[in-house]
Amino acid sequence: MKQAIYRTHGKADQVVELIDLDPRPLELGETRIKILRAPINPSDIIQIAGNYGSQPALPAQIGLEGVGEVMEVHGSGLDIGTRVIVPNPPGAWATEKTVPSAGLVPLPDADLDQLAMLIVNPATAYLLLTEFVDLVEGDWIIQSAATSAVGQLVTQLAKARGLKVASVVRRKSAIEALQAAGADAVFMDGPDLARQVAEGLDKAPVLAIDAVAGETFSRLTDCLQESGTIVLFGNLSGQNTCVPDQTVVFKDITMRGFWLTQWLQTTSPEDIGRVFGELTTLIATGQIHSPVERVYPIEDIHEALSHAMRGNRSGKVLLAPNGL
Amino acid sequence: MKQAIYRTHGKADQVVELIDLDPRPLELGETRIKILRAPINPSDIIQIAGNYGSQPALPAQIGLEGVGEVMEVHGSGLDIGTRVIVPNPPGAWATEKTVPSAGLVPLPDADLDQLAMLIVNPATAYLLLTEFVDLVEGDWIIQSAATSAVGQLVTQLAKARGLKVASVVRRKSAIEALQAAGADAVFMDGPDLARQVAEGLDKAPVLAIDAVAGETFSRLTDCLQESGTIVLFGNLSGQNTCVPDQTVVFKDITMRGFWLTQWLQTTSPEDIGRVFGELTTLIATGQIHSPVERVYPIEDIHEALSHAMRGNRSGKVLLAPNGL
Repeated sequence: MKQAIYRTHGKADQVVELIDLDPRPLELGETRIKILRAPINPSDIIQIAGNYGSQPALPAQIGLEGVGEVMEVHGSGLDIGTRVIVPNPPGAWATEKTVPSAGLVPLPDADLDQLAMLIVNPATAYLLLTEFVDLVEGDWIIQSAATSAVGQLVTQLAKARGLKVASVVRRKSAIEALQAAGADAVFMDGPDLARQVAEGLDKAPVLAIDAVAGETFSRLTDCLQESGTIVLFGNLSGQNTCVPDQTVVFKDITMRGFWLTQWLQTTSPEDIGRVFGELTTLIATGQIHSPVERVYPIEDIHEALSHAMRGNRSGKVLLAPNGL
Repeated sequence: MKQAIYRTHGKADQVVELIDLDPRPLELGETRIKILRAPINPSDIIQIAGNYGSQPALPAQIGLEGVGEVMEVHGSGLDIGTRVIVPNPPGAWATEKTVPSAGLVPLPDADLDQLAMLIVNPATAYLLLTEFVDLVEGDWIIQSAATSAVGQLVTQLAKARGLKVASVVRRKSAIEALQAAGADAVFMDGPDLARQVAEGLDKAPVLAIDAVAGETFSRLTDCLQESGTIVLFGNLSGQNTCVPDQTVVFKDITMRGFWLTQWLQTTSPEDIGRVFGELTTLIATGQIHSPVERVYPIEDIHEALSHAMRGNRSGKVLLAPNGL
């Protein structure tokens, strides 16, 4: 089997290695999964760089999510060939993975690439819209990084629930695409964002979603209605994030952080299963869709990583560990 | 009657005037209160300076709280001489105030100065400990500005509930007094605060209370346990407040603001009455106590304001509008 690992932290396209391993025999209660597709997510890149919330011991496996099919079972389990999500991250950037048979759930028939991207982005978008504020039809939400994979999914999920989406962008060239993708309002990020939003919307947003941090976080906070909530889940700007303390104190603002890994670690398997089930249905019915820019054979992992690390992509880069 | 007002924003001891007014006759359903004591709170000073969450039209009355006795009633009401909290702030820096009779509640027999300070500081301290986190006996809280009036009340209320209090100070000279006042641990504010707290406490605080803002806010956030909450309710440092975004995202931190005025405006009269009732009992039984540095006749209001605006006081400065 082939397995992507890194021995030191650094730039992913420089430190990731593809090694050959002898697969170990299955123990009773284990299933071997043949991995078919695994995306390269920014959180993989950040983890390899050593800037993530958890630091695994090195050398470490990598690949936070993927889809595969059952290739071998010891004891009772699913039929050979059944499609499943690759559980127990990381380790999806490999030709196969051995996992406990318990908890594996057959997937419905749906696009392989979309199923491979079920967890990291769709679950983040879904939970950003459900875990923090009880949103009701007609409520405005406002988000930065609206062109990102999560940003697009937030828009799709919000529209499906009858919410109104205000998207904030840093490039004028993105405005048209966001309007086409369903954003009800698009604003250019800048010092006058709060004024633009106050003048442009019929009522103030109750929830702000931010992956940019820095000044954008402050500006989004200023856009919120009284007792509004802002959730931070990334720092694309790399800037220090400052709080407008007068706004926070006098407007009763709640500021939260969100990290999917922590949610997965602290949520019951039943609740996780329920969310993944809903997301699988949304993917199977085409209600959410993440664009794909290119799929690479796992042998071309360095080229794939260089590609994934470039800005201005139109979609995700995926690995095909067992051929395209 | 005499009434303190300000016609322009500025330093309180420079812009506040004491004017003479003819009291108007009562209308049916009104009570005239003779004001006996009214404290000078930092929030009065900030409001006069024009830096508060709400800006009344000028010229404006001032004085957010006080205690008095019923001096005249038109229609049904309390007996003459009954002690009551001065309602409907501002306007407590005056010899008398005319208010609706409905809602006036007789006060128990207790120290006049303490009753005059019932709302602004004790209610803030009480709500900081009740509105944000469900604290249970043995939980640690951590607070900045522990020597402030609110800080002392937080310690008293927390101890009464079996909570453990870690107090953070900026002056070494304050440590002993805080230990004597009941703090279970005292730390010096500084870049290594989180390390000190991690080494000094048996478990990490679940709630941080901050009135300093700036770097102290970040450091307190770093002291919290996973899924902890920090509440900001002031900015004594005058510094810009920056969020440690990695901590917020990866540790699921909740950051909130608190402003008593907004709580008063958005909470039902029943709930407000319940909180004030509990605080009155705590004062009457001596469980909470705010130190007083000096009481001034209202004629000496400028001297009183200069005194109140000095740092390093040992207690509150109060006005006695109808004599000491």
